[in-house]
Amino acid sequence: MGGVVLLDFWVSPFGQRCRIALAEKGVEYEYREENLADKSELLLKSNPVHKKIPVLLHDGKPVCESLIIVEYIDEVWPDKYPILPKDPYARAQARFWADFIDKKIYDCGTRLWKLKGEAQQDAKKEFLDILKLLEGELGDKKFFGGETFGFVDIALVPFASWFYTYETSANFSTEEVAPKLVAWAQRCMERESVSKTLSDPHKVHEFVGFLKKRYGVE
Amino acid sequence: MGGVVLLDFWVSPFGQRCRIALAEKGVEYEYREENLADKSELLLKSNPVHKKIPVLLHDGKPVCESLIIVEYIDEVWPDKYPILPKDPYARAQARFWADFIDKKIYDCGTRLWKLKGEAQQDAKKEFLDILKLLEGELGDKKFFGGETFGFVDIALVPFASWFYTYETSANFSTEEVAPKLVAWAQRCMERESVSKTLSDPHKVHEFVGFLKKRYGVE
Repeated sequence: MGGVVLLDFWVSPFGQRCRIALAEKGVEYEYREENLADKSELLLKSNPVHKKIPVLLHDGKPVCESLIIVEYIDEVWPDKYPILPKDPYARAQARFWADFIDKKIYDCGTRLWKLKGEAQQDAKKEFLDILKLLEGELGDKKFFGGETFGFVDIALVPFASWFYTYETSANFSTEEVAPKLVAWAQRCMERESVSKTLSDPHKVHEFVGFLKKRYGVE
Repeated sequence: MGGVVLLDFWVSPFGQRCRIALAEKGVEYEYREENLADKSELLLKSNPVHKKIPVLLHDGKPVCESLIIVEYIDEVWPDKYPILPKDPYARAQARFWADFIDKKIYDCGTRLWKLKGEAQQDAKKEFLDILKLLEGELGDKKFFGGETFGFVDIALVPFASWFYTYETSANFSTEEVAPKLVAWAQRCMERESVSKTLSDPHKVHEFVGFLKKRYGVE
């Protein structure tokens, strides 16, 4: 199996990172939607450790874990649209914030819609702190790395489609807590790589409704 | 504050990764031991997000998170002893396994000594699976990346000093489960960067005994 194939799932913010990176690089690839309730043999064989999407297959060789895939894409197709900065210190900072996003947003965000009562309030407090930290790091910059859309933006922007679900689940306004972050997400949406990739927030909400039923969450 | 300073704690496997990388590169640096019960202003200011060691200060600018620090060291001092391979696919594989180690070993290992009964048995089962996965990935190679000591070795080897504590806490033998991994750790110990950095396994055991008292674990 030659060329580039992405094993993915439509609403996955992790898969969307890879799709945005491939779009920025102008890489042609075959998108294969996985059924997460009945994963393909190819997915299980390609990612035997985590058994998760996304997986990028490049000339048949699998690369797993979304941020590692994005760095791989940046290294294999270095000329068009560099994703990571060149300077080692700026690279380390970009990796730090992408890692922070990776460790915090999805897990804490899931607790917002999955939990109730005090546990949900704890998650909300933590989520607001995460938003404030990101708002502070963004500051008055156009993008997280400065003037150009890059690694941290790619790591974070797919979650912008989830904010509506997070907000309505835990009753807060991202706009009030982190107005610069909301404006940044709008700026990102001006890029075709982003606008063509991100899910409609209402579709995410519907999908989470489906997950809630599956998990027996009221 | 110019030069290179490492804020660290003697027994930290995360800090030891950075010390091994600096030793391999022959970088002179000032080691500053932190009191984790009373963290320095410099640590809190340098890593306000996680408030954790290790932090590498390079000409006063902080870099946080051990694997990010090791990549930074590799990029700033690229000529002597390359830590990551050059080939993008090999780099992605190295990052994948380092990330796997990062996500699994310390957390699961801590559950081995902190928990009792069924919860400990669950952790043990998970830990043995982790060891088997690493044993399989290592296979008959000398080091994880092949012939030369590199990124994955640096990520994993500090935990070799913790295996004695893990084994005695949960009653298993790493040697029996993963004999190639034990031989690999011995090979790593032939390198001065490793042997001079790793903690004595009995000192680790003593330290964990101290943690158990603090956490009220019998």
